[in-house]
Amino acid sequence: MATLKNDRFLRALLREPVDITPVWMMRQAGRYLPEYRASRSKAGSFMDLCKNPDLACEVTLQPLDRYPLDAAILFSDILTIPDAMGLGLYFSEGEGPKFERPIKSEADIDAIGVPDPEDDLGYVMEGVRTIRRELDGRVPLIGFSGSPWTLATYMVEGGSTKNFGLVKGMMFDRPDMMHKLLDKLADSVISYLNGQIAAGAQAVMIFDTWGGVLTPRDYEAFSLAYMRKIVQGLTREADGRKVPVIMFTKGGALWLDQMAETGCDALGVDWTLDMADARTRVQDKVALQGNMDPCILYSNPDRIREEVGRVLESYGRGPGHVFNLGHGIHPTIDPENVGAFIDAVHDLSKQYHD
Amino acid sequence: MATLKNDRFLRALLREPVDITPVWMMRQAGRYLPEYRASRSKAGSFMDLCKNPDLACEVTLQPLDRYPLDAAILFSDILTIPDAMGLGLYFSEGEGPKFERPIKSEADIDAIGVPDPEDDLGYVMEGVRTIRRELDGRVPLIGFSGSPWTLATYMVEGGSTKNFGLVKGMMFDRPDMMHKLLDKLADSVISYLNGQIAAGAQAVMIFDTWGGVLTPRDYEAFSLAYMRKIVQGLTREADGRKVPVIMFTKGGALWLDQMAETGCDALGVDWTLDMADARTRVQDKVALQGNMDPCILYSNPDRIREEVGRVLESYGRGPGHVFNLGHGIHPTIDPENVGAFIDAVHDLSKQYHD
Repeated sequence: MATLKNDRFLRALLREPVDITPVWMMRQAGRYLPEYRASRSKAGSFMDLCKNPDLACEVTLQPLDRYPLDAAILFSDILTIPDAMGLGLYFSEGEGPKFERPIKSEADIDAIGVPDPEDDLGYVMEGVRTIRRELDGRVPLIGFSGSPWTLATYMVEGGSTKNFGLVKGMMFDRPDMMHKLLDKLADSVISYLNGQIAAGAQAVMIFDTWGGVLTPRDYEAFSLAYMRKIVQGLTREADGRKVPVIMFTKGGALWLDQMAETGCDALGVDWTLDMADARTRVQDKVALQGNMDPCILYSNPDRIREEVGRVLESYGRGPGHVFNLGHGIHPTIDPENVGAFIDAVHDLSKQYHD
Repeated sequence: MATLKNDRFLRALLREPVDITPVWMMRQAGRYLPEYRASRSKAGSFMDLCKNPDLACEVTLQPLDRYPLDAAILFSDILTIPDAMGLGLYFSEGEGPKFERPIKSEADIDAIGVPDPEDDLGYVMEGVRTIRRELDGRVPLIGFSGSPWTLATYMVEGGSTKNFGLVKGMMFDRPDMMHKLLDKLADSVISYLNGQIAAGAQAVMIFDTWGGVLTPRDYEAFSLAYMRKIVQGLTREADGRKVPVIMFTKGGALWLDQMAETGCDALGVDWTLDMADARTRVQDKVALQGNMDPCILYSNPDRIREEVGRVLESYGRGPGHVFNLGHGIHPTIDPENVGAFIDAVHDLSKQYHD
């Protein structure tokens, strides 16, 4: 493997000193880039793009060719695991992800198995190997998975939902069934992320997109408990280097302190909490990744620079900050503004590091 | 006006002693009730139902005929004000509210005026008078409005949104324009709610459905500041009794302490925070309304009773608790389970009052 030329992302995740604050963006390989839209047209459907390792590599590298980002993230979808379980993932225009065969009964849960990373999700593993080779040590590669609770919401609802009536209905009425499903999903995520690490992922992130729709008690029992199990089951070293784990619950600002106790290295933070408050909550036990509102990128370079400065100031001096948006970048953002954003983070962050 | 036979809702909002914890549900007049669906068919469109004072009264009273609820809430929509401003509200099947003429420019903002409650929103005022007469003192009547920020999101986006790109884009790029719009909306909400109070509303609630998508700083500047202005501009007494004001920001658990300082009497609380924690945050300065996850109603009477007990225990002894769901009741809930819920609140809450 090529030597890593820029490791400030990995160092920041482990709260080690860095020269400037590293930055990347959730969904940085995405529709706001014309070159992404061209690759997507070439591929066919969104899932065709995900399942083609060469094209997945191509779009993963596109934002790095435009901007001095400090990390690459595998281009894939959070729902590859349930797809590999046989639920039949597809994307219907304007409606987001859907499953042909959602989970409706205990028999459906009994029927699914833990996918084998190489046999059942080989296109992801091959994608990781290809990207890692093509990156050639420029920046570290992030692997990722959806959290068990987040995967379960789509699997039970059959797609996106506003109310979470079916999945919460099952959780409240048949908690035993829900736990059985979540446990299988946790085992699957462990196996999937360890596969990605073996294939070359240098950090991994668990996306708990829907943990924030739960009560504090249900969040602990149905989401955090399974993410804790995952963290404990992951391979934490590769190529003689620690593989940091980032945990992100959107809308989970209230629970950062519990999340910091799971053994993960870093927490993603959305913009509903100032970084200073987030840092107080976790008492510097973990690094923090965030947290600019992606809609700032709709404004102008001066306003973007002002907001970057505010987030950096809120986190303050010392190690442990990875700059990111509090959620994925939107498809209608102007790529020029993204450049202004990335440059502002690097320019303005020098003063916060020795 | 008829004497109020059951005033425990008003008493609880003012933190006065009650015999049992009062309970009502957001969207209690709604699609989960077959009799509502019948009235809705009779009316035609959803807006036809809202604009017909007799039918609006009919559906407002339906849940009270089924369940021993402690309050009635005016049947209407949060977007009546922008409709009266001339934006052309309509509901497209499965997509929620839409505006024919959304706000796109400063000229659009300059063109709108503050609607007169009787001249421009007379159907709402007539609805309040009709309901109040038909209620005949059974329980108090709640009037309501959307918050300025929440109204602005729909007015600028032209309907529902997931990303808030247009409205936040305007907020970040042209804060001066956004403040001009919000100020007109605050004046309109004051006038609208004072109209409802004059017509007979005995308490009012401000629904800030989308305040929770903001950063702490932007929440203060673009949502809370205007709700504070509203609270200060409201008529606070009618028929020789105080008219309590309830403020509810969905996803606003982090900001309850600031909300408690606005001069309102009570705060709505969603289920992301335990009532005990919410009470600590507001230090008993205001009453609290909430906070059961509405999805519990998908389970069964035993489970519902257990959860009601947990919420009551979390709030604990003493005055100032109005039981409610943390969000509106879903259209697919079984009305039998609603009965079990309401009864459980009344049964189990006796022990928390002297």
